[in-house]
Amino acid sequence: MIETDIELLKGIANQLRIHSITATTAAGSGHPTSCCSAADLVATLFFGHMRYDPKNPHFHNNDRFILSKGHAAPLLYAAWTENGFVPIAELDKLRQFGCELEGHPTPRLAFVDVATGSLGQGLGVGVGMARAARLDNLDYNTYVLLGDGEIAEGAVWEAASLAGVYKLNNLIAIVDANRLGQSEATAFGHDVGVYAKRFDAFGWRVEEIDGHDIEEISEVLSGVGLDDKPLVIVAKTYKGAGVSFLQDKEGWHGKPLNKEEATKAIAELQPSAKSGIGVPIPAPAQLPAPNNSAPASYPPLNYNLGDKIATREAYGNALARIGEVDQRIVAVDGDTKNSTFADKFFKKFPERSTECYIAEQNMVGVATGFGARGKVPFASTFATFFTRAYDQIRVAGISKANLKLVGSHVGVSIGEDGPSQMALEDLAMMRAIVGSTVLYPSDAVATEKLLEQMALGKGVYFLRTSRPKTPVIYGNDEQFPVGGAKVLRQNAGDKVTVVAAGVTLFEALKAADALKAEGIGITVIDAYSIKPLGKKEILAAAQKTNNTVITVEDHYAEGGLGDAVAGELSVEGIKVHKLAVTGLPHSGKAEELLAKFGIDAAAIAKKVKSA
Amino acid sequence: MIETDIELLKGIANQLRIHSITATTAAGSGHPTSCCSAADLVATLFFGHMRYDPKNPHFHNNDRFILSKGHAAPLLYAAWTENGFVPIAELDKLRQFGCELEGHPTPRLAFVDVATGSLGQGLGVGVGMARAARLDNLDYNTYVLLGDGEIAEGAVWEAASLAGVYKLNNLIAIVDANRLGQSEATAFGHDVGVYAKRFDAFGWRVEEIDGHDIEEISEVLSGVGLDDKPLVIVAKTYKGAGVSFLQDKEGWHGKPLNKEEATKAIAELQPSAKSGIGVPIPAPAQLPAPNNSAPASYPPLNYNLGDKIATREAYGNALARIGEVDQRIVAVDGDTKNSTFADKFFKKFPERSTECYIAEQNMVGVATGFGARGKVPFASTFATFFTRAYDQIRVAGISKANLKLVGSHVGVSIGEDGPSQMALEDLAMMRAIVGSTVLYPSDAVATEKLLEQMALGKGVYFLRTSRPKTPVIYGNDEQFPVGGAKVLRQNAGDKVTVVAAGVTLFEALKAADALKAEGIGITVIDAYSIKPLGKKEILAAAQKTNNTVITVEDHYAEGGLGDAVAGELSVEGIKVHKLAVTGLPHSGKAEELLAKFGIDAAAIAKKVKSA
Repeated sequence: MIETDIELLKGIANQLRIHSITATTAAGSGHPTSCCSAADLVATLFFGHMRYDPKNPHFHNNDRFILSKGHAAPLLYAAWTENGFVPIAELDKLRQFGCELEGHPTPRLAFVDVATGSLGQGLGVGVGMARAARLDNLDYNTYVLLGDGEIAEGAVWEAASLAGVYKLNNLIAIVDANRLGQSEATAFGHDVGVYAKRFDAFGWRVEEIDGHDIEEISEVLSGVGLDDKPLVIVAKTYKGAGVSFLQDKEGWHGKPLNKEEATKAIAELQPSAKSGIGVPIPAPAQLPAPNNSAPASYPPLNYNLGDKIATREAYGNALARIGEVDQRIVAVDGDTKNSTFADKFFKKFPERSTECYIAEQNMVGVATGFGARGKVPFASTFATFFTRAYDQIRVAGISKANLKLVGSHVGVSIGEDGPSQMALEDLAMMRAIVGSTVLYPSDAVATEKLLEQMALGKGVYFLRTSRPKTPVIYGNDEQFPVGGAKVLRQNAGDKVTVVAAGVTLFEALKAADALKAEGIGITVIDAYSIKPLGKKEILAAAQKTNNTVITVEDHYAEGGLGDAVAGELSVEGIKVHKLAVTGLPHSGKAEELLAKFGIDAAAIAKKVKSA
Repeated sequence: MIETDIELLKGIANQLRIHSITATTAAGSGHPTSCCSAADLVATLFFGHMRYDPKNPHFHNNDRFILSKGHAAPLLYAAWTENGFVPIAELDKLRQFGCELEGHPTPRLAFVDVATGSLGQGLGVGVGMARAARLDNLDYNTYVLLGDGEIAEGAVWEAASLAGVYKLNNLIAIVDANRLGQSEATAFGHDVGVYAKRFDAFGWRVEEIDGHDIEEISEVLSGVGLDDKPLVIVAKTYKGAGVSFLQDKEGWHGKPLNKEEATKAIAELQPSAKSGIGVPIPAPAQLPAPNNSAPASYPPLNYNLGDKIATREAYGNALARIGEVDQRIVAVDGDTKNSTFADKFFKKFPERSTECYIAEQNMVGVATGFGARGKVPFASTFATFFTRAYDQIRVAGISKANLKLVGSHVGVSIGEDGPSQMALEDLAMMRAIVGSTVLYPSDAVATEKLLEQMALGKGVYFLRTSRPKTPVIYGNDEQFPVGGAKVLRQNAGDKVTVVAAGVTLFEALKAADALKAEGIGITVIDAYSIKPLGKKEILAAAQKTNNTVITVEDHYAEGGLGDAVAGELSVEGIKVHKLAVTGLPHSGKAEELLAKFGIDAAAIAKKVKSA
């Protein structure tokens, strides 16, 4: 690298610092010092090494950049300003209502693939993107910039381990080791050898550098892809670097400069600042774009009414069936694939399958990464283990990510394994994801049809599958529109409407039979769509049954089916009686537990009589 | 160690294997092969090295043992059978309804401190216990047995890192590296050097051994506490070890043997099996027990009506105030203590404070560990970052752990930082924890009084604090019983009852003032107790206002205050209109966002008129 290039990149780095300070001072909030530490790294990446089309951030073979330390957002925005994509006037509106340049990056911006700012998540997404590049035969690299405080997060090490296992030499992590966290120094301060040793142990090639030395940065970036390991660049930096009164000082995390301070800082930076406008950016190779379009249709189903099959197994069947014609579909699992039945897909399409081992945060991150590259990722594990990845799922909601989650082994009906394996909070947590769709099929046909819609729809979806075998109750051509519900039993004079899904639907049907023998009629509804809820169908039925509904769910009483129905229908004057699991469950046979927690046919019949 | 001891321990190990096989065969489910791999390790620990009173598992200076790989539960139960604590007849009822020997261990058993079975959690709890031992000047060691599949979990590395930082040489991790996961081999199989290298990089002293060689196991256990690092024993083992047709074979995870197979296996093991009954167990030192009793009272409050103070700051004040007289209280935080205001406690009581850095899964694990040792642990971070630890919180619920969570920066009212930092799902997730208590104070007095009750109560509590300053509206002697609600405005002829908490309570009060000027009266209720809900107060008020309630919350519409109220009151014929955040938020000023998402005073007034 020649001297003029180095001087240019140094100058651009200072220009990025100036933008970061100016914008946060104008906003009155933000993290200028966290931008300053990484400015040299970002300048060298964006104006010397990354291969991308700055006019078209979505170009399929652009190198990807994930700002995992999302609080340095102004630095990212500044880079896209200096490469000509973002008008400079926009920067002045940082963090303002209506401005897409938010406090932390989101995909409202064309050059952001996934929302960041909740720390620890970028590397997992990067693993998914790097895997997607391989699958699509593209040669883009994925760069992830992390903070040193952030790598205390376990999710980072889940991702690091998997990247090592899959030898992703198209993935580059850069650790901006600026020593200072939010409330105090990090545990290891500037002893950056600790990070180097850890990444080495996790299967990475390690480069330890001075993160403010453009020549060193450039040299190690020139070595990207050299061997078969992912590369980590551990960069020793200073928070607030470049400004004398900020550099390496405590007490400056997340604080903008006041106007005088900003003026003083800019006076220090300005003399050597240089614009990036017009600087030639290395172009990406013009490789063929992957075909990421949905197929015209999926192959038909072939179940027989009355067949006994668990919805979790139907999930495996469905994924293998639609995966045959839908090349966008990829699957990830966390060493449960023989229980979730994802293995039906894994065996058929190994190249589109990623075993993530027992590391669900990363599994969801990897899936999100695939989704950000145009794939339709299905991630499966026991439903309750998605609790481990709740933050990743939450941020996927913010990203409007295309992410399909399938959780098996729900409720007390799993039986003997006991409460640690029972999902009883999954509906609550998945309903509370912004923009999510939550589905809960009761038979194999419903499962398969809902899965088709998950593949074709865009956004975060959750499908709740069950462990026990249940009979096929729908014909192969039945349709299950998202936001609908099925009325399975209904007669004039019905006393109450029972709304259920999964194993409790069959308990409700049993209760209906038993009550019928006693001359009591009830309406039974299959609420396969929890969010959006089949409100219209449930309301219509309830209005015919004295405005009275009983909900029955193999889930805790909070935030699940009962709350969903009450939350939507109470305003219509509907009385909702909730049957749900209200105490701490334990091991036992499924039928013993359904009875004990009052969600079996007998409990339903009893409630009908009292309601 | 003499030859006879080795033969005895080998014999006990085989007896543990026999119990594990017999019990799971009788149960018809379970993980016998995962027991067999660790049998030699457990036999040597329980019958030669751990110092504990087998008659009194709760003795305060007993060495602790956490079976992080909880699916090997029968092995643990077998050890407590062979040491005489569990009657052998109980083992035959493994996993049966009503038997405390569940599929995975829970603290229903006296010798289990925390529930395990959801993988990756044991080591974090162990860190908390090891820290508690130091605090209490006790010399017990904490042993954590992990599976090799399990250590793919990031939570393990969060814990490993912190144990290294705090130099916990009273913490011993044992990795049962049996090579085989559930659905396939682990990523590293028997290349156990990978694990050794990783723990070394995370600051541990490492011993790599043959996990079936009693002499080797015993030798490394003799070195516990030798230097100032935590010790990991990486034990190469075979799944199903000791039984020819099980050992190191795929396809045996989580499968019991049928009767013939069990007979065959036992025939192989029986000849060398030996009973542990009567084997002398090393006794723990008789050190003084810590005083873990609650104080008679807490110092009084001293706020003035109208003072403006954020509830997050009141949390810090409260913790420092009650911590003064309540020695049980300890605090942990994830590098946010200057924002959550936990730093008021950290500065005053550094020895009772643990900085966990940005690693929330482990932070909650550490707190749970403190709670299991009689402390009252308060864990704080931004409320939305508790999503990262949702599985740890879920399992704390199963453990009936004494765990106090305090989450700040909730809702869109945090403003400019944007959605990644806004807790909008925390009420939903915390309500769905079994046995949890969920509190949401609106002013400083309520915060302080609720915190006292959190300290005195037992179980999982969550306190939701807010970022903006709000006025003190209650006198210093006001009482806030858990499960109550405060009626702040109420007059005859009120049209509707508005239920709110936090920032929206003040919007509701503003709306009440504005409506009053128009001649419209509304009842306003402070729902400071979300779970249990102040149902009685809300119902009584609603019945006076045409059975109509409006809930207003800075939270998503799913699973929060609105669903809680509708879920409990719809059955009483109350109509609940929910005002909540229903779309994806973004950066902006708090007041702009409250207005946009329809939860400010204007939106409330509008809703009152339409409802």
